[in-house]
Amino acid sequence: MNSKSHTESANAIRMLTVDAVQKAASGHPGAPMGMADIATVLWQNFLSHHPLNPDWANRDRFVLSNGHGSMLIYSLLHLSGYDVSIDDLKQFRQLHSKTPGHPEVGYTPGVETTTGPLGAGIANAVGMAIAEKTLAAQFNKPAFDLVDHYTYCFLGDGCMMEGISHESCSLAGTLGLGKLIAFWDDNGISIDGHVEGWFSDDTASRFEAYGWHVIRDVDGHDAAAITAAIEQAKQESSKPTLICCKTTIGFGSPNKSGSHDCHGAPLGAEEIDAVRQQLDWPHAPFVVPNEVYLAWDATVSGQGRFDEWQQLFEDYKQQFPELAAEFKRRVIDQELPADFDSKALDFIRQCQEQQADLPTRKASQNSIGFLANQLPELLGGSADLAGSNLTLWPEAKGLQDEASGNYVFYGVREFGMSAIMNGIALHGGFIPFGATFLMFMEYARNAVRMSALMKAQSIFVYTHDSIGQGEDGPTHQPVEQLANLRLTPNLDTWRPCDSAEAAVAWVESVKRANGPSALVFSRQNTKAEPRNDEQLANVAKGGYILRETLSDPDIVLIATGSEVSLATGAAEQLAEQGVQARVVSMPCTERFDGQLAAYKEAVLPPACPKLVVEAAHPDFWHKYIAGNGAAIGIDCFGESAPGPALLKHFGFTVDKVVAKAKELVG
Amino acid sequence: MNSKSHTESANAIRMLTVDAVQKAASGHPGAPMGMADIATVLWQNFLSHHPLNPDWANRDRFVLSNGHGSMLIYSLLHLSGYDVSIDDLKQFRQLHSKTPGHPEVGYTPGVETTTGPLGAGIANAVGMAIAEKTLAAQFNKPAFDLVDHYTYCFLGDGCMMEGISHESCSLAGTLGLGKLIAFWDDNGISIDGHVEGWFSDDTASRFEAYGWHVIRDVDGHDAAAITAAIEQAKQESSKPTLICCKTTIGFGSPNKSGSHDCHGAPLGAEEIDAVRQQLDWPHAPFVVPNEVYLAWDATVSGQGRFDEWQQLFEDYKQQFPELAAEFKRRVIDQELPADFDSKALDFIRQCQEQQADLPTRKASQNSIGFLANQLPELLGGSADLAGSNLTLWPEAKGLQDEASGNYVFYGVREFGMSAIMNGIALHGGFIPFGATFLMFMEYARNAVRMSALMKAQSIFVYTHDSIGQGEDGPTHQPVEQLANLRLTPNLDTWRPCDSAEAAVAWVESVKRANGPSALVFSRQNTKAEPRNDEQLANVAKGGYILRETLSDPDIVLIATGSEVSLATGAAEQLAEQGVQARVVSMPCTERFDGQLAAYKEAVLPPACPKLVVEAAHPDFWHKYIAGNGAAIGIDCFGESAPGPALLKHFGFTVDKVVAKAKELVG
Repeated sequence: MNSKSHTESANAIRMLTVDAVQKAASGHPGAPMGMADIATVLWQNFLSHHPLNPDWANRDRFVLSNGHGSMLIYSLLHLSGYDVSIDDLKQFRQLHSKTPGHPEVGYTPGVETTTGPLGAGIANAVGMAIAEKTLAAQFNKPAFDLVDHYTYCFLGDGCMMEGISHESCSLAGTLGLGKLIAFWDDNGISIDGHVEGWFSDDTASRFEAYGWHVIRDVDGHDAAAITAAIEQAKQESSKPTLICCKTTIGFGSPNKSGSHDCHGAPLGAEEIDAVRQQLDWPHAPFVVPNEVYLAWDATVSGQGRFDEWQQLFEDYKQQFPELAAEFKRRVIDQELPADFDSKALDFIRQCQEQQADLPTRKASQNSIGFLANQLPELLGGSADLAGSNLTLWPEAKGLQDEASGNYVFYGVREFGMSAIMNGIALHGGFIPFGATFLMFMEYARNAVRMSALMKAQSIFVYTHDSIGQGEDGPTHQPVEQLANLRLTPNLDTWRPCDSAEAAVAWVESVKRANGPSALVFSRQNTKAEPRNDEQLANVAKGGYILRETLSDPDIVLIATGSEVSLATGAAEQLAEQGVQARVVSMPCTERFDGQLAAYKEAVLPPACPKLVVEAAHPDFWHKYIAGNGAAIGIDCFGESAPGPALLKHFGFTVDKVVAKAKELVG
Repeated sequence: MNSKSHTESANAIRMLTVDAVQKAASGHPGAPMGMADIATVLWQNFLSHHPLNPDWANRDRFVLSNGHGSMLIYSLLHLSGYDVSIDDLKQFRQLHSKTPGHPEVGYTPGVETTTGPLGAGIANAVGMAIAEKTLAAQFNKPAFDLVDHYTYCFLGDGCMMEGISHESCSLAGTLGLGKLIAFWDDNGISIDGHVEGWFSDDTASRFEAYGWHVIRDVDGHDAAAITAAIEQAKQESSKPTLICCKTTIGFGSPNKSGSHDCHGAPLGAEEIDAVRQQLDWPHAPFVVPNEVYLAWDATVSGQGRFDEWQQLFEDYKQQFPELAAEFKRRVIDQELPADFDSKALDFIRQCQEQQADLPTRKASQNSIGFLANQLPELLGGSADLAGSNLTLWPEAKGLQDEASGNYVFYGVREFGMSAIMNGIALHGGFIPFGATFLMFMEYARNAVRMSALMKAQSIFVYTHDSIGQGEDGPTHQPVEQLANLRLTPNLDTWRPCDSAEAAVAWVESVKRANGPSALVFSRQNTKAEPRNDEQLANVAKGGYILRETLSDPDIVLIATGSEVSLATGAAEQLAEQGVQARVVSMPCTERFDGQLAAYKEAVLPPACPKLVVEAAHPDFWHKYIAGNGAAIGIDCFGESAPGPALLKHFGFTVDKVVAKAKELVG
């Protein structure tokens, strides 16, 4: 390595960063300036990627977990030859630019995951490394390392303090993810200042306690030391590696480096002049000399790596045509099998015909069993509740026992699990699902939101979905959680009422490639509802007429999940009393909202009063009630008692529904 | 210690547990059976408490972080002489019993905090230990250790896997909480089975990396070893101690011990017979021999400890009458100063009169400054965002610098912070507040809910409350978070529009002793609104007429926070165009909902169309719109751009409000 070239390459990052942050009048210069040397070594000498084909399946993944340092990755992408121009850098943090305040997957070629919420990036990286290792075990053959890439992750003190770093890195150690290499930016500074007063962990020892390979005390400004550390990391194939890099935040800033002053604000024109002086960088803002661009350019080397891999894949195709086709389907095209739709339809019909009264968590398990047989890309899991969530199926194999397995025993790590799932989904080759109790969605809440923001296909399975859960009491009984999920943009939340609806929910989630789904299931038994073909087809519309009245309805009963049978029961009694009550089952409000107005009005006639029945917070439903009707729900915390006693105590009975409906009809 | 007595004492716990779980036909026998010996040693020989006065200020705190093992604590309370009868144990997990499925503070004398959500209990315990240490530094005098108690915490593998254990225990190490002693129930079993496949941490080393004093390899069934470990723990006064106890889950069950089979289900009648045999416990279910009760009884010793402390407090009163009065006010009576209301009113009036246009986060800082001068019990903090949340005031002193301080630099630990705050609040003597960006409420979401469930007075400060936040982009811009908070039972969520409303929100939160508040503030500037005395008084009602029309209103504009000025601006323009628009400011919907119907109808006349303006998810507001009106909100993710550009992009302009209002008026 040419030392001058390294220095100028790293300084190009620093200057692009300070100039872009200054121009935007907002941003975080400290981390990119501090990590520029590490990034330069990694990207110029190790990272296997192809700037002109950012979606190449076997590229190394790079995750900036300290996402506020986004100008680092934008600089890297620009300099390496990705489709991120100097004009894009000038648009840093402006509306609809390729360079938003934090790296956002889908906005910028080469950005692998959206980071910013601290600690989530390292968990995504763990997910990517799990995907790589599992995919390799499923597809690689002797002399055919079709899947063989590293996952690199930068993380800062903030990531280290967050609990999610514990959850995900502990699991990474247990799973022995040897191709995960993380760089800790140990600069001793967080927003409140020098970290000693609130962060005094011996982080190296902590990661050794997780079973990681830890390389201590690397000078993060010494290219040779960084190089040696990465080489050493790659030697260790049975453990993930943490490289502890001592750096100076804002390196290059004579008056602000080493202080939180340079963390999250522009340096100011005067100090930027001083940086130019100190770094001996005489060029104007956003001007990078050609020789520096040349040192950075990875398009040629990237093309070479890609061509080589393409050749490998061609040879693989010859020798293993079926596997190659499957690889192309799952990993490159990311499509479901051609016969999936028809088989899924058969399965749904079968569930409908069987009319089995089951807890929907049990119905879910049946759906999982069907899907897993069709889709080897399904990678299941639970946060230590397999037997309660009912997420195991006969052919499930834990990754800790079999590298080519299809199930992750995530341990009691809801947040880690969910963010890891997002990493798996973003990697490609898998559709991950993971389960916990609906209440503990809250532990993982931000990862669920991030999947929706990133349009990542994570499937979140949530059982024990209401006070019907019973004896565990209010700490375990969801009330406002359904509304929380439903109000999340780009998340489909399903709460099926029986086996057939559960099957539809699962199938639709698996088909929804551009976003996550939350599947909400009951602990207790539900009643199988009769449906004709049209009704069965309408389940996928999110809301449909489950029980029609003989004449125009006097009232519409809307219900979901375990409360649908209360509505149908009430409708029967009401009919006997001369009240025509239509029952609308609404397993997925987001899907229903997306239907044509004519369909929605046909299902929910505006003039007709509505009575909603759902064992969850009722306020969500005012959107559909629209001032004409009511909701039977629960707006306080639950209690500990047997489920049936609780449902009665809180008013979830047919009698209550009948009485309320009659009151509304008047 | 009498060995037979110890064994029988521990077996009493085991048998009460298996019999109660069996009778309830649900529950978790494994952990109580496994931890019975540890609990017996701790409670019989070390715990300083007073069963007949469970609120004694200087009692040791005991937290069962693995709260599913609730029969352990119910057995302990019953046997020690608390007001928990054998009939209460027979009512385990039944509606409105003193013995719900998980320990719930307020339901059962002697239960210090509600546990069940794993890992939260150890964080609560850290909070209690912080409260003890800080209170001691504020009140103790030479020879007067008025505040001098331990906080003991039991935790299981599940707690250890959860990220919150990392956040809270890391901070506990940094703060050197020498009187926190935790017992890890190292039984190698979690719900999915033997933990090796998903949990292989070297937990002892991990805690040493946090700066804890770790006692390894204690036989959790050897009373002498447990005794020695606790004694050793108490010798170390500068570090928290983790005692690693090897135990057998379900100890005493010949066929199910050591397996997850005994974790979360009744053992069954046959196995319970076998347990009786193995433990040599010939007594009928729920029968405990008198000599065992005698060994357990702590009422006499408790009375002695309490009397001794009372005498100390009497002597302290003589020597330090002012401090003693303050101790009585803050810790024993838990009341605000007598002159608080009038001073608060003056402050609110002053904010109103100053008519300063400020970001509400800045207004919040002014309120904090006022309150901290009145209330030494205010214990502030932020999750590493002091300079952004604006939570520091001139007299703020970090605990790491001054043991008697009033500010916790929590580090980047939102969940840990929030659960620690709950522990501080439950301990008594402090009103904790802690801050982060509104978005990262999500990281801490379940601790917020737990504070509401526990009626704990935690004050959560959330700044950067909308897309108005600007350049950081959608990862940092709340959309559905306000609705999430508002739908949480027993939580007051305030989103003030200016300094006066911010002052009211703060004062009301400080006065709300029986529950938490969330205070939501803007990053950007707001406009000070004029108010007469009646309007100013009405702010505390949660919603009020801020701008009245000359004649009957044609439309009511409802707004909160930074959007109130859009509503008042629109109302002015509408008036010029002949449309009478009333403006209702609604800083706290929960408070408004609690007003008399007549007030609510006077503010929001049912027949009048409503237009809501809030830069958050609009669906929440259908409750007030009730089919007659609309909401201008944001139901998608934000973008990265300067705040003003975003507000315009997403339609938060006076023109848009005017146009929509005219459309609604027709």
